[in-house]
Amino acid sequence: MAVLYTSEAARGAVFAGRFAAALPDQPFFLNTAPHPEEVNYLITWTVPEGAGALYPNLKLIFSVGAGVDQFNLEAFPPHVGVVRMLEPGIAEQMKEYVTLAVLGLHRDLPRYMAQKAGHLWKMHKNAPAGSRTVGVMGLGQLSKASLEALRPFGFKLRGWSRSPQTIDGVETFTDLAAFLSGTDILVCLLPLTAETEGLINTDLFARLPEGAALVHAGRGKQLDHAALAAALSSGQLSAAWLDVTDPEPLPADHAFWEHPQIVLTPHVASQTRAEDGADHVIAGIRAHLAGKPVPGLVDKRKGY
Amino acid sequence: MAVLYTSEAARGAVFAGRFAAALPDQPFFLNTAPHPEEVNYLITWTVPEGAGALYPNLKLIFSVGAGVDQFNLEAFPPHVGVVRMLEPGIAEQMKEYVTLAVLGLHRDLPRYMAQKAGHLWKMHKNAPAGSRTVGVMGLGQLSKASLEALRPFGFKLRGWSRSPQTIDGVETFTDLAAFLSGTDILVCLLPLTAETEGLINTDLFARLPEGAALVHAGRGKQLDHAALAAALSSGQLSAAWLDVTDPEPLPADHAFWEHPQIVLTPHVASQTRAEDGADHVIAGIRAHLAGKPVPGLVDKRKGY
Repeated sequence: MAVLYTSEAARGAVFAGRFAAALPDQPFFLNTAPHPEEVNYLITWTVPEGAGALYPNLKLIFSVGAGVDQFNLEAFPPHVGVVRMLEPGIAEQMKEYVTLAVLGLHRDLPRYMAQKAGHLWKMHKNAPAGSRTVGVMGLGQLSKASLEALRPFGFKLRGWSRSPQTIDGVETFTDLAAFLSGTDILVCLLPLTAETEGLINTDLFARLPEGAALVHAGRGKQLDHAALAAALSSGQLSAAWLDVTDPEPLPADHAFWEHPQIVLTPHVASQTRAEDGADHVIAGIRAHLAGKPVPGLVDKRKGY
Repeated sequence: MAVLYTSEAARGAVFAGRFAAALPDQPFFLNTAPHPEEVNYLITWTVPEGAGALYPNLKLIFSVGAGVDQFNLEAFPPHVGVVRMLEPGIAEQMKEYVTLAVLGLHRDLPRYMAQKAGHLWKMHKNAPAGSRTVGVMGLGQLSKASLEALRPFGFKLRGWSRSPQTIDGVETFTDLAAFLSGTDILVCLLPLTAETEGLINTDLFARLPEGAALVHAGRGKQLDHAALAAALSSGQLSAAWLDVTDPEPLPADHAFWEHPQIVLTPHVASQTRAEDGADHVIAGIRAHLAGKPVPGLVDKRKGY
């Protein structure tokens, strides 16, 4: 019975310290385990090929980051559980990022940044927040925290998810076309699954009101990059604020670097804090040992 | 007895419509009054030289914008009151702008914008909001709305004003040096007065923690522009987010346009909405006619 951590070293040292204090009787290894057959819990970002054979007694795989789309969920036997990272810091950071991006688009920041580059001092009229509808795709914990943060500014709020949801003060939709038709600032926080890959494309942009804006902090593969460039060029979209691209890092010669209507950050919307991440994994292992539900256990059919 | 409006034409048309509906018996003139001696109420941004002699029966001057620093308050006889613009839209816009700027500095947006210009994909660690202190100079309605908007993100909040104030959840100071010594993100929303002109200077920057950041949405003349450039260059300040400069417009050859650590917007943090502004002036005239206190009447000794 052992825990194996195989990811970034600095983070691993934090995990090792937390495990020594909280689960002192649980053998904990960094990088490699002397007896792989003893490994029950694997903490990692990427699972090596052949992991199923290498770790025959694996019970749970913990992701060190917010997503689990980097795992090939079908590569593991059905009894091996996959656990995504849940820690309050992720939602705190995401609500900051989404509020920053939505306010930045609402207040014309890309245009003023382009004017600065051109040494142009020119005012444009501010639109009242109450005249703008912000629509969030995906209604998990990150989206709920973000909607809550946007509420005090007076935006009209709406959300879209596959299964019906009720959120106070937010108009919720399961019909994507209806959701899109009134959304002025679209925020994507969806997990990457077979259903969401390529979802943000020409057809989706065409369903938004003309001049809408996009905040994308989901996953790069959800966005058709050429369709975004075309929509910005035609005026169907006015601006975009991206934290994710495909591939990452964005190649140095990609057109988005120089695009005046695109704000770009290098996948920093939410970062797991090592201490909080370790505590989440420790709580999950304790729950599993006690036969209780493991927080963040992924439904492999849905992919999140 | 007449009202004279002398400012931007589009806004004037809105004022004329609102006055016709609300005060139909009150003569209202745009640009010039046929009988200047009948003018009791002047609505304007700038008061012409010799206005005291031209309008001998002037009772109140209403500013069409948020400040009154454009007026030479001593040029009018003591019995002529000066009224600043108060309308809810100004505070709503300011709280959006301050939240945008504070979150942008908190989340390293100037650095990521500079990296974008250099085609560089490089992550930096996010600091928790709880580790940062945001300090607001000036504690009027705009500052209170801004502090309220920042509260849900978990920043430590403090405020500085000349007279002691108590605000729930905000550490308040009257001692400027004590206020500055713990402020990581400094927000200036002060009115321009003899006391605040040139206040943001080398000495002030030296009292902030090294690497602090500045949001300036007060008035351009409060900021020593050369001192800001020097503080950014030495690392005493990490970045600045400016909505005001001196002069405005900023000359096309000014170094701030190309400065990678400065975000610059052209004095758009708060704009008076014509309808709401007209309603504020109408309410002020009604109050004055009824002998009641006029909302926004300026204390000429203080200058705000």
